[in-house]
Amino acid sequence: MNISYLYIMKKIKIGVVGLGNLGRACIEIIKERKNEFQLIAVFSRREVSGCISLAQINEYKDKIDVLLVCVGSQADAPILVPQLAQNFNTVDSFDNHAEIPLYIERINENQDNTTAIVATGWDPGLFSIVRIYFDAFIGGTAESFYGKGVSLGHTNAVRAIQGVQDAIQFTIPKSEAVTKVRKGQQVDCLEKHKRLCYVVCEHDSPEERKRIENEIKSMKNYFENQEVEIIFISKKDFDKRYKNKVSHGGMVLSGDGKSTIELKLKLKSNPRFTAQVMIAYAIANYNLQQQDRSGVFTVADIEPALLTNCNYLQKI
Amino acid sequence: MNISYLYIMKKIKIGVVGLGNLGRACIEIIKERKNEFQLIAVFSRREVSGCISLAQINEYKDKIDVLLVCVGSQADAPILVPQLAQNFNTVDSFDNHAEIPLYIERINENQDNTTAIVATGWDPGLFSIVRIYFDAFIGGTAESFYGKGVSLGHTNAVRAIQGVQDAIQFTIPKSEAVTKVRKGQQVDCLEKHKRLCYVVCEHDSPEERKRIENEIKSMKNYFENQEVEIIFISKKDFDKRYKNKVSHGGMVLSGDGKSTIELKLKLKSNPRFTAQVMIAYAIANYNLQQQDRSGVFTVADIEPALLTNCNYLQKI
Repeated sequence: MNISYLYIMKKIKIGVVGLGNLGRACIEIIKERKNEFQLIAVFSRREVSGCISLAQINEYKDKIDVLLVCVGSQADAPILVPQLAQNFNTVDSFDNHAEIPLYIERINENQDNTTAIVATGWDPGLFSIVRIYFDAFIGGTAESFYGKGVSLGHTNAVRAIQGVQDAIQFTIPKSEAVTKVRKGQQVDCLEKHKRLCYVVCEHDSPEERKRIENEIKSMKNYFENQEVEIIFISKKDFDKRYKNKVSHGGMVLSGDGKSTIELKLKLKSNPRFTAQVMIAYAIANYNLQQQDRSGVFTVADIEPALLTNCNYLQKI
Repeated sequence: MNISYLYIMKKIKIGVVGLGNLGRACIEIIKERKNEFQLIAVFSRREVSGCISLAQINEYKDKIDVLLVCVGSQADAPILVPQLAQNFNTVDSFDNHAEIPLYIERINENQDNTTAIVATGWDPGLFSIVRIYFDAFIGGTAESFYGKGVSLGHTNAVRAIQGVQDAIQFTIPKSEAVTKVRKGQQVDCLEKHKRLCYVVCEHDSPEERKRIENEIKSMKNYFENQEVEIIFISKKDFDKRYKNKVSHGGMVLSGDGKSTIELKLKLKSNPRFTAQVMIAYAIANYNLQQQDRSGVFTVADIEPALLTNCNYLQKI
């Protein structure tokens, strides 16, 4: 039998790298699910109480089953994940769609018999899987829409710009594009959403605003060639209105004139859901290791059965 | 790299067993997608013009890549599929959830290095996958609802009863149960739907109606212990109102108080969508064969990437 069901008899030993919103959400869930997981260590490049310095991570090589890498996709993940994947089995939420093939190659070059699952979360992640199934089943071109809500990846990308003290990016579906897709017309992915950024400058000035605005609008794969609105606000207003705002949602639509399939996601907390998906793929990573399957895996390369530690045949 | 992407350079050679609604829908789609598939033969136990007798199927052993077995789940598939799986790589839409583990065992015992994909379609099938992903990601218990629409499996089960000339079964979600799930309360699967059957008797009489009604209501896994309404009608009324009625739909709901995910499916033609899913898994079956992976697979044992014959990384 090919049934790949593996019952997890022992707790999966987890390490977390990064202590931003996503890292904290992962830690919260691991603690809630303490019958399934054991949190071994949290690693940070900054000095944080309770965290181990990232420089010491290789001392934990044989103590961690799966490392959840919770760092920004724009600057950090492309450097860090290939390094970490040399010694650790990793799960990340790299979200730069266009860069995924190159990212996979970089990780794979560095791996020494480890298992890396890349680009999990809700998109890429849940929505990627749904697009593949929808396209396979009804042959049309599945289209994804986001928001209105906070994009973690885009928010982090804006925050990473020098001179930005804080920022948030709201993704807003453009109603003209939704209407087109419902009519079965094609839309260009750059015309589907508007991107609205609220930005707090470290040292506010007209020149500084101009420079930051240019950096955002020209950021490849994130903002370039899209409708982008940037609003500069004070730290006080930002904290009052947007601090810790993490709700999001979206949908994938597909239709061929005879059938329609629609997936809708509503999230009170975007990092929490991303963390939940990462942790589901931590189980998959552990199951892959038990089957001696090493290498780089996307969500499309992993059979659904590996995501569960109970008898999935009951859910068929 | 573990990327399981395989580009199909040649057409997949398909055989179809059974010429009911589902078999005809499969043939229709294979003909529409003639760049990807080649229809080698259609097999039937009955004498039908253009069909090969099922008794001769073993002569086609090396001529068919994937056999789509389109026969009823109640009486035919449990006998036929294990026999066919000895010499052929099969895809079926066996839909008797409770019997799937036993069905898998039976097929596996008979297989001689072949690849069988069982219980595809929309439920089991698409909805099974969605239940597994939803449960893995948000931890709640995903619940599925069907209809109002025509259930092929239940319709065939009623049609298979002796003395039934024609029949149709509508599945109707019970609003009390939907309300419970939305509130996060548990529901028993037997209280989720009402099953409404319209039945035409071959030889109508009060005794015959009573016997057929009893047979339907006591049918294990299909009707037993559920709310069932049976309405006997004339052949003339049946043909006018219900002949070839195949629309269906359903939804899978899941929520954990913080996130909700919802999949909605609307089908003008139930057999057509089931056939589309079977054909997607014919591609997966072919890809499994290329990787020397034999045995019995459910939809949960197959990575999404295998369902496509184009570069799935673009959809991540």
